[in-house]
Amino acid sequence: MRERGCSEEELFSFLSSKRREDLGYHNILSSMCTSPHPVAERVHAMFLETNLGDPGLFRGTASLEDLLVRRIGELMHHPDAGGYATSGGTESNIQALRIAKKRKPVASPNVVVPASAHFSFEKACDMLSLEMRTAPVDACYRMEVDALDGIVDKNTVCIVGIVGTTEYGMIDPIARLSELAEERETFLHVDAAFGGMVVPFLQNPAPFDFQLPGVDSISVDPHKMGMSTIPAGCLLVRDARMFTCLNVDTPYLTVKQECTLAGTRSGASVAAALAVLEYLGKDGMRAIVAGCMENTRRLIEGMETFGCPRAVTPDVNVATFVCDASPAGWRVSRTRNGHMRIVCMPHVHRDVIEAFLRDMGELNA
Amino acid sequence: MRERGCSEEELFSFLSSKRREDLGYHNILSSMCTSPHPVAERVHAMFLETNLGDPGLFRGTASLEDLLVRRIGELMHHPDAGGYATSGGTESNIQALRIAKKRKPVASPNVVVPASAHFSFEKACDMLSLEMRTAPVDACYRMEVDALDGIVDKNTVCIVGIVGTTEYGMIDPIARLSELAEERETFLHVDAAFGGMVVPFLQNPAPFDFQLPGVDSISVDPHKMGMSTIPAGCLLVRDARMFTCLNVDTPYLTVKQECTLAGTRSGASVAAALAVLEYLGKDGMRAIVAGCMENTRRLIEGMETFGCPRAVTPDVNVATFVCDASPAGWRVSRTRNGHMRIVCMPHVHRDVIEAFLRDMGELNA
Repeated sequence: MRERGCSEEELFSFLSSKRREDLGYHNILSSMCTSPHPVAERVHAMFLETNLGDPGLFRGTASLEDLLVRRIGELMHHPDAGGYATSGGTESNIQALRIAKKRKPVASPNVVVPASAHFSFEKACDMLSLEMRTAPVDACYRMEVDALDGIVDKNTVCIVGIVGTTEYGMIDPIARLSELAEERETFLHVDAAFGGMVVPFLQNPAPFDFQLPGVDSISVDPHKMGMSTIPAGCLLVRDARMFTCLNVDTPYLTVKQECTLAGTRSGASVAAALAVLEYLGKDGMRAIVAGCMENTRRLIEGMETFGCPRAVTPDVNVATFVCDASPAGWRVSRTRNGHMRIVCMPHVHRDVIEAFLRDMGELNA
Repeated sequence: MRERGCSEEELFSFLSSKRREDLGYHNILSSMCTSPHPVAERVHAMFLETNLGDPGLFRGTASLEDLLVRRIGELMHHPDAGGYATSGGTESNIQALRIAKKRKPVASPNVVVPASAHFSFEKACDMLSLEMRTAPVDACYRMEVDALDGIVDKNTVCIVGIVGTTEYGMIDPIARLSELAEERETFLHVDAAFGGMVVPFLQNPAPFDFQLPGVDSISVDPHKMGMSTIPAGCLLVRDARMFTCLNVDTPYLTVKQECTLAGTRSGASVAAALAVLEYLGKDGMRAIVAGCMENTRRLIEGMETFGCPRAVTPDVNVATFVCDASPAGWRVSRTRNGHMRIVCMPHVHRDVIEAFLRDMGELNA
């Protein structure tokens, strides 16, 4: 660390040069994050110094967290769901598995996830000393429920289904998982970190949420398709009392116990997440999601004219292709199977898709 | 969730009313957080959309994280320390214990913390299935190293010492812990979440960092005394390779593996944390810390004239008193022993201390 500080001019000149080394979202086709909504930016600044880790000091901000949980609960057909704002999908998944493990104390607990599960489950199982069992996916990359008979056993503390898989944008058959979880009296966690802010805004979506009696908890990330700032995740549980088993005593704070993973937590991104939902309403979210889905369809159609077939028809706005090359200047990603992967986030406007397709066309010319 | 969105006017009127329900920092004497430095606010906005979870997309911001780790490493007398920006002290402590546990695979692992340890260790031990053993503290609330003989055993995977305890602002005898840790070949984690941004700026501080050969990892929170925005924690380890055991594969990202707890991570507060350090330099930090320490002394002196003796003379800027009543309009907190507790953060200026003392005087009049 330098002995004497630098001038503001020197500092901001350095930071600006570093910021320019970052890519802009306009060329990023590989991320499940996006440019925050302008409303989110403004609200974030307004709540910048708030700390939800000591809610008695920031009662107004804390009430916005409660309202965010309520709004997402309403979307998930359970306005009275318990919940809190996490740092993102990984924390939500860790906390859900912690609850599930505590509810079924067995000697050698295991968790069953689809092969398509996000790598955060690997972290969670490692931390929590849970055996992670992987269920196969079908030809459309959805969890094979029929295969679970040989995988779920009396030591299974949790079954996980995904709504909007990271790699292929698929929705697991949650209704069938719900039945199975009820039959086996097993905790069912739905990882809707991505799809939770997409599927409710599609026309006639298949049920995946608390409507299904077997679903115990759901992870939804406003900092993905909710266009909030980072960090804004949300873990919902069917009954707020499910969190009790995570409580630790918190002397010297304005509350006596807390169940969250982190202590100090910014209220800025949480207020921002709520603000975007309030500002857009269901109508506004439907319009944005419809645009992302339409762009996904257009991208697939365009790519197929270049002889790059889709790997699968996705359930949400993630498109994957059999395609080796990609044009310079664009950031796409690759699935574990080697498919090209593009996430049609809100910043990936129609003209971005068309520009990318033009560059693909030149590559193939 | 409402069907139609609301107007910006309606939204911001609602949010402003909620924000007014929060306390302002000027009356908060109980928090280890503070109003972010103006430089931190400005830099935060500049890096708002960056995501350190996918560093290949945000190379500039990722290089600032590396520089932050280097700067804090320099402060901790080990410029080449490994590290990353966590969401705060809890994540840092969890990750340090994860590393310690993996380095010593025993059947019934335990961790030894002082009775003064932050409640995040309870969370960490619960998550990681570690037995938490509590060592007594002496009359000055510092860990009793002599008592460790009967507590540390062959199953102890980690010893924890605190630099700036949450309740009393004390520094454990880290040099003696370092010797013991070397003798017993046990991992030593130093929780300097609060004190890590105080002690290096005091005159002739006792060594507590990587200077001591037994220290393996250190937690430091720039979002506390580093005056950054939330979330900005930092976990440093003596050797970057210590993180390898936490790695998971991260297909479809721009990096192949990651060791962090969270996936998506904001770069905004990380850039802000670095910016404050660069802007102030050691000189600037020394001035701020000297002010906080002077205010702590003044507060103690003033309180004692009202017959409210200090519970202990603190090592850092946390003051505690035998004092039942506290004046209205101020937010102080209580330790588990019932002492009044005030943290003299940078926002607690001298005039705030004097105003509080005047109100205390009236209460006692």
